[in-house]
Parts: sequence; C-alpha cells; structure tokens
Amino acid sequence: MERIGFVGTGVMGGSMAGHLLDAGYPLAVHNRTKERAAGLVERGAVWHDRPGSLAAASDVVITIVGFPADVEQVYLGADGVLAAMEPGSLAIDMTTSSPALARRLAEAGAERSITVLDAPVSGGDRGAREATLAIMVGGDDAGFRRALPVFEVMGGNIRHLGPAGAGQHTKMSNQIAIASGMMGVCEAMAYAGAAGLDPSAVLEAIETGAAGSWSLSNLMPRALRGDFAPGFKIKHFLKDLRIAIESAREMDLEFPGLATAIGLYERLEAVGRGEDGTQALLDLYRQRSA
Amino acid sequence: MERIGFVGTGVMGGSMAGHLLDAGYPLAVHNRTKERAAGLVERGAVWHDRPGSLAAASDVVITIVGFPADVEQVYLGADGVLAAMEPGSLAIDMTTSSPALARRLAEAGAERSITVLDAPVSGGDRGAREATLAIMVGGDDAGFRRALPVFEVMGGNIRHLGPAGAGQHTKMSNQIAIASGMMGVCEAMAYAGAAGLDPSAVLEAIETGAAGSWSLSNLMPRALRGDFAPGFKIKHFLKDLRIAIESAREMDLEFPGLATAIGLYERLEAVGRGEDGTQALLDLYRQRSA
Repeated sequence: MERIGFVGTGVMGGSMAGHLLDAGYPLAVHNRTKERAAGLVERGAVWHDRPGSLAAASDVVITIVGFPADVEQVYLGADGVLAAMEPGSLAIDMTTSSPALARRLAEAGAERSITVLDAPVSGGDRGAREATLAIMVGGDDAGFRRALPVFEVMGGNIRHLGPAGAGQHTKMSNQIAIASGMMGVCEAMAYAGAAGLDPSAVLEAIETGAAGSWSLSNLMPRALRGDFAPGFKIKHFLKDLRIAIESAREMDLEFPGLATAIGLYERLEAVGRGEDGTQALLDLYRQRSA
Repeated sequence: MERIGFVGTGVMGGSMAGHLLDAGYPLAVHNRTKERAAGLVERGAVWHDRPGSLAAASDVVITIVGFPADVEQVYLGADGVLAAMEPGSLAIDMTTSSPALARRLAEAGAERSITVLDAPVSGGDRGAREATLAIMVGGDDAGFRRALPVFEVMGGNIRHLGPAGAGQHTKMSNQIAIASGMMGVCEAMAYAGAAGLDPSAVLEAIETGAAGSWSLSNLMPRALRGDFAPGFKIKHFLKDLRIAIESAREMDLEFPGLATAIGLYERLEAVGRGEDGTQALLDLYRQRSA
C-alpha cells in the first residue's frame, strides 16, 4: 500500500486520517499544533516535525489546513512538501482554497513530475467522522484514478470535475449557493417571527415545497431554538466566501447575492460571532427588528 | 353539500375548481375572461356574469385572482362578494395577496357575520392539477374547520397558521426564502460555467449536500438547457416579492437579500422577460459575464 503523509489533523483531518489508519495505510502525520495529532500517533501514525521530512517519507501527501496562505506555506515554503517529494509521487490538497493557487501548485508539481490534485470536501465534521464526505476533485485523470482508493476510504460522493482548480471551483459554487440561500431562510424565519407567527410551524409549512432547502430544514430549527453551536463556523465560511468573490472577480463576474451575504456575515464577525455556526445569521435579522 | 362559488378560473383556479366539481360540489363560476371558464361550465358549473350574483347563490365563495387590487375589487367593489353574501357564509381568498388586505377583508366580513379566510397556495400549476397544493391558512378556527373538507379536495399539506393574515404571511415567508435562494443557485451555476466546468456536473456534485435546494434540483437543470418556460412567471414572482418587502417594511424589517433579488428580477422584467419562468435569472448572470 502507498505510504501516506497527512498534514493537518484538526477536526476534519483528524477523522479523515483515522479512516486511513483503519484501512491499513502506513501513515505519517504533521500538524501545526502537535497535541492534536497525539491520538493518531497512539494508533500507529508516525509523527514528523516538518512537512518536508513527512513528504520525503511518503508516496502520497494529503493536506487539509486552514487558509490559502497555509496551503502555500506547506507546499512551497522553506521546508515545504513539493521540494521534498520524490518524482512520481502524488499530493492532494483537500483544504478549501483558491482555484488559482490550486493551478499554481499543479504547475509547480508538474515541473518536478509530481501530480497535485485539489480535492476540497463538503459534509462537515459529521461527514468526516462517518466517511461520507463529498469530495470535489480537480487535476489530471491518472492522478485522480490513483487517488480514488484513498478518497473512497474518506468519502461518498466523489467526483472528478476537471483539470487543476476544478475541485476548488466546484466547492466555490457550493459555498456561493449556500451564501444567498442562508439569507433567504433567515429572512423568511425573521419575517415569520416578526409577523407574530410560530416560525417553526411556518418552516414545516414551507419546507416541503419550492422553498425547501438543506439550510432551511437542518440549520433553521437549531437557530430557532437558540442553538448557534457551529456545524460550520462563520469565520471559516467567510474565508471561503472571500475566496469565492475574489475568484468571481477574476472572471469579471458580479454576484450581488454573494456580496450582500458577505456583508452581513462580516457584521456578525465584527461583533465577535466568528466562532458561531453560520445559522447565527438569524440573530442579525432578529436584532435589527428588535 | 355546500354550494361553492369560484371566482378566478385561470391556470391555478381552473384546476382547483375542476377538483371541486369532481368531488360533487354544486359549483358557480365567474372569471374576468369568460372563455376560460367554458370547460367548467361544460362540466356542469353555473356561469355568473358578476361576483355579486355568484356570491348570493353560494354558501362558500373561493377566490383566486391576480393582484391585491383585484382581490379588493372582487370583495369590496361595487358588485363585490361581501355585500352579496348571506350572514353565516364563508369566503376564502386563495390569491397570494397582502397580509394587511387579508386582515381588512376578515374585519369587513365579520361586520356582516361572514367569515373570511386567507389561504394562499404553493405548488404551482402542477400542484393544482394533481391536487397536492400546500395551503397556508389564516383566519378563525371555526372557519378553518368548515373549510377543511374543501381544502382537502384541492391540496395536500394544509396548515392553519394563525389569525387573519397568517396564511399570507406564511406565503410571504415562502417567497422570501425562494428569492435569495434563486440568486444563490443562479450565481453558483453561472460561476461554474464561467470557470469552464460543466455546470450540470457541478450541480450533481453539490445538490446532495448543504447546498441542496428545491430550486437547485428542479429549476437549474431547466435553465441550464435553456428552458425558460414558466413554472412560475417572473411577473407574478415580482408581484409577490413586492408585497413581501412592503409588508416587511411595515414591520420595520430590513431584508437586504430580498431587496437585492427584487432588483435583479426587475432588470429582467425591464428587458421584457416578465413572462419567463423564475429560472431565467440565470440568463442575467450569464449576460453579465458574456
């Protein structure tokens, strides 16, 4: 079996790497905060202090870190993985990151005969735990086929959407659809409450029809009972949305819905709610009407 | 059985009235354009030239017309139904109309011991044909119980949400959720196309997760193949959204998502696309990027 090096063992990566261990892959791990990899090391993963030494000992490197700047550092930085990997090896960035950076990494890899795929996921911490993540893949065909058995250990709906950057672009489409959709469901629930109706009853009346959405049925019941614990944190959602609107602008696209949603989420972040789940947007509408 | 008078036998009302005939109700009909009631008259409905004479011959009057101004005319106009109905009778307005007008009609009816319910529907022409409409009802309890057997002939998800106006408010919540949601799915698909991906493949990759919605799965496949035939016409959607934002303003609510969506749909209407289905919003984004 391929030797896998895993960089980024946080909430998402920790579960995903655990599945690889369970499947019997020899696993090397690195994380900015070493303690968060302790559970994996106890189960047999080999710790590396630096991404470079991990990469030199791996056939396949998987990364899932925070921001595009972190991705750039891990791949291209002073002790980065691309310089350390053997020709013929495979790197997969599963961070939600910028499509342009994904293309740059694929090009930088190709110069050294290293295949780099972009493969962001959706499905959250639960999808990671249950190995049901949607995995949206960009990059070359041979690389995708090689990675597929590894993806199948971590996810369910696995799709190859196109060349390098296509995975990130697909994830951006996903986040763009969610952004305005969240405004819609929060405005609908805020309206119902202000009109003196029971928002939960209204939700049940409308969720089965043309207003139905995952956000309405899954996030609004939590928000209506005051549960703002993150499935997905506002600060991470904003990171994704800023990449999306930047990427859209590079293509001369103007997305007023997305821009409006970003503005609202930035107001929430500005009042210290970046750690809340995205459903906390409902509070912004409620406060305005209070 | 109650004698039913039905005002407004268009695409929606024609199917709904047909179900009442099938169920054996004695039916009187009136419509602004007489020809559109011909099929019902052939099947046994009795034509009336004026709403007032229809109302005088009915125990229950059902209306589903175009705009709030039409509702006002039918109920309160020179030859309107309220003045002609017997005390103890029931009127049900199933037009999507203003919550404030629904309350006014209920009050005007109560002065003459006539119960008026607001009961707008969702589910479109197909829901009307298949008698699966969601029916969102506002008004008093006894009126709702009396109307329920009639509603059950025309719809599926039938809910009593509160006093007069509650049905219209619920329908407004429904349309508000859809409005921003449509921006989201159209921006997502426009982004995918501009990024060089196959939007249909992206749709399939994201519709099963947190970006999933009725609009994405049902309207975007049509829009992507250039099918802009109306399930629901832009001009009617705009009518609803204008009622919604007016009603929101009366409650001092500020809905930037809704306002943004209205602005985009008004641009489509301004270029002559009011007769297209709501999914034509995708074209606006495509043209901008062309």
